[in-house]
Amino acid sequence: MAATDYTRSIMQPLALTMGEPAGIGAEIAAGAWSALRAGGPAFFLIDDATRPFGVPIQAIAASEDATAVFPHALPVLHRRLPAVPVPGRPDPANAGAVIAAIAEAVELTKSGRAGAVVTNPIQKSVLTAAGFKHPGHTEYLGEIAGTGVPPVMMLASEELRVVPVTVHEALARAIARLTPEMIVETARITAAALRDQFGIARPRLAVAGLNPHAGEAGTMGREDIDIVAPAVAVLRADGIDARGPLPPDTMFTALARPTYDAAICLYHDQALIPIKTLDMAGGVNVTLGLSIVRTSPDHGTALDIAGTGRADPSSLIAAIRLAATLAAARGTA
Amino acid sequence: MAATDYTRSIMQPLALTMGEPAGIGAEIAAGAWSALRAGGPAFFLIDDATRPFGVPIQAIAASEDATAVFPHALPVLHRRLPAVPVPGRPDPANAGAVIAAIAEAVELTKSGRAGAVVTNPIQKSVLTAAGFKHPGHTEYLGEIAGTGVPPVMMLASEELRVVPVTVHEALARAIARLTPEMIVETARITAAALRDQFGIARPRLAVAGLNPHAGEAGTMGREDIDIVAPAVAVLRADGIDARGPLPPDTMFTALARPTYDAAICLYHDQALIPIKTLDMAGGVNVTLGLSIVRTSPDHGTALDIAGTGRADPSSLIAAIRLAATLAAARGTA
Repeated sequence: MAATDYTRSIMQPLALTMGEPAGIGAEIAAGAWSALRAGGPAFFLIDDATRPFGVPIQAIAASEDATAVFPHALPVLHRRLPAVPVPGRPDPANAGAVIAAIAEAVELTKSGRAGAVVTNPIQKSVLTAAGFKHPGHTEYLGEIAGTGVPPVMMLASEELRVVPVTVHEALARAIARLTPEMIVETARITAAALRDQFGIARPRLAVAGLNPHAGEAGTMGREDIDIVAPAVAVLRADGIDARGPLPPDTMFTALARPTYDAAICLYHDQALIPIKTLDMAGGVNVTLGLSIVRTSPDHGTALDIAGTGRADPSSLIAAIRLAATLAAARGTA
Repeated sequence: MAATDYTRSIMQPLALTMGEPAGIGAEIAAGAWSALRAGGPAFFLIDDATRPFGVPIQAIAASEDATAVFPHALPVLHRRLPAVPVPGRPDPANAGAVIAAIAEAVELTKSGRAGAVVTNPIQKSVLTAAGFKHPGHTEYLGEIAGTGVPPVMMLASEELRVVPVTVHEALARAIARLTPEMIVETARITAAALRDQFGIARPRLAVAGLNPHAGEAGTMGREDIDIVAPAVAVLRADGIDARGPLPPDTMFTALARPTYDAAICLYHDQALIPIKTLDMAGGVNVTLGLSIVRTSPDHGTALDIAGTGRADPSSLIAAIRLAATLAAARGTA
């Protein structure tokens, strides 16, 4: 991807949520600030400013103050946590604040006071126990920042972009409920986002098959003939440059990857195995189909290493950079 | 892997089959000979010696002649093809010779006149149309060189070894018929082969989960709890160092790969996507559970580029080298 001069292009700082306070969110936010303070993009963290961060911080009263503060200290939009965070031990008492930080980041972005939302990882089980009704970030964002289409998750790295049609459900169930319409809808949202947000005039989509070798003409399952091929035909009739069903095991090779702009995958691990095999730290989660730009690192809360200083901020840094690039293209940052 | 001095360790040459005569087999055999003629390991090709090979060849009367010929010419154990091969256009008239070459390579190896079998890719649809009853090489070899256990396919590269528990069948069917016993049997054969053929005293197995995040405590499918976890428990009770069910998307990362000697995967693409994403050309197919050593390149017949000189012999070279190493460990080469 082309280098972006964030110091010139960014007008509004990015809003970074705290994520699970017992996880690595504060540590990797501090690491990202250290890496980006000189060249940007500028961001502020919505978190409890009384926590230890290990880097200079400055509490800010409003998002507008973040850009001036950023070269000198990590700007923190202070929101008090009811319970003092203990690394590795999530406290349901903080669940409300975790969710509120997401909602506030979205509102600031919708109203033009932040350029985009970057979310730190949350611990779903803790939020669920505290009454959070959504399976995850993406679904919640679809409710508070939707555009009438379902939000779609893209994982993006330097080498590969993947979009799973089904995500967090049992594999057998994902197969049983897969339809051509689901593939078409996801691929359309992806093509539109690649064009409008990523600046790719004519996006090329590679649509994965479901079965080994894409079913080998129906000898190993009918889904590739009955579900995937008709979806590709609809997309092509729409004028979208889509190919498939492709044999899943050969479509992610080094030779194949440069031939498309995004891979439309049929289930969670078909998408996530190749991208994490290539680039564990650099993958960025981008939510397509929202009214705002939202990215997040492609890893979890890492409760096992929280507080040890071993957390790697690379994926968060990549998420911040991509959010700034996409927001600049949208004109919101 | 440690470097092996093939010129000293190999007593018997390796038997390389012709594979599909209309494919790239002859070309990559010639390429492998060019690459290996100086340092070995020595091999001979079972093929029609009247075909063009593009390198110096010498017809041999018996496998014993191959080692002396090898530094000077590609040794070809001449077996006449009924139809002249046309690149890209398989002829069913040659199907019998293709199968006979596999059977002869096995017999020569069983009787100690060859060190191991390396197979070039076959075109299954052509063999099936000609009456071949087996889904592929592996199943056929299980019949003619079996040891009372089902043959198990391993894909091995420098960075990763993967073993799929289910292989060439529809994904929905693979999930529906998966049992703890299938996982246990495959893992036991794998652990034994890693110990006896690969020289790993205490093999470490990583057993993949089936569902996203290995089901997250049953919230995304029960198979990881009901099928995979009990299999891992049985293996551990056997004294095998097995871990799992592991989240499939994070078990193939650069950090995770060095923590195990082989990944036991539950379906074809769970195994083949990560290895081909990493290393399209270097992956070698090793059949475990046979009475002989057998390897093959991890690609197909490449009918679309056969005869163009563009075929890459890297995977075949890796297959020949690994066969020699495994045969030397077994004492058959």
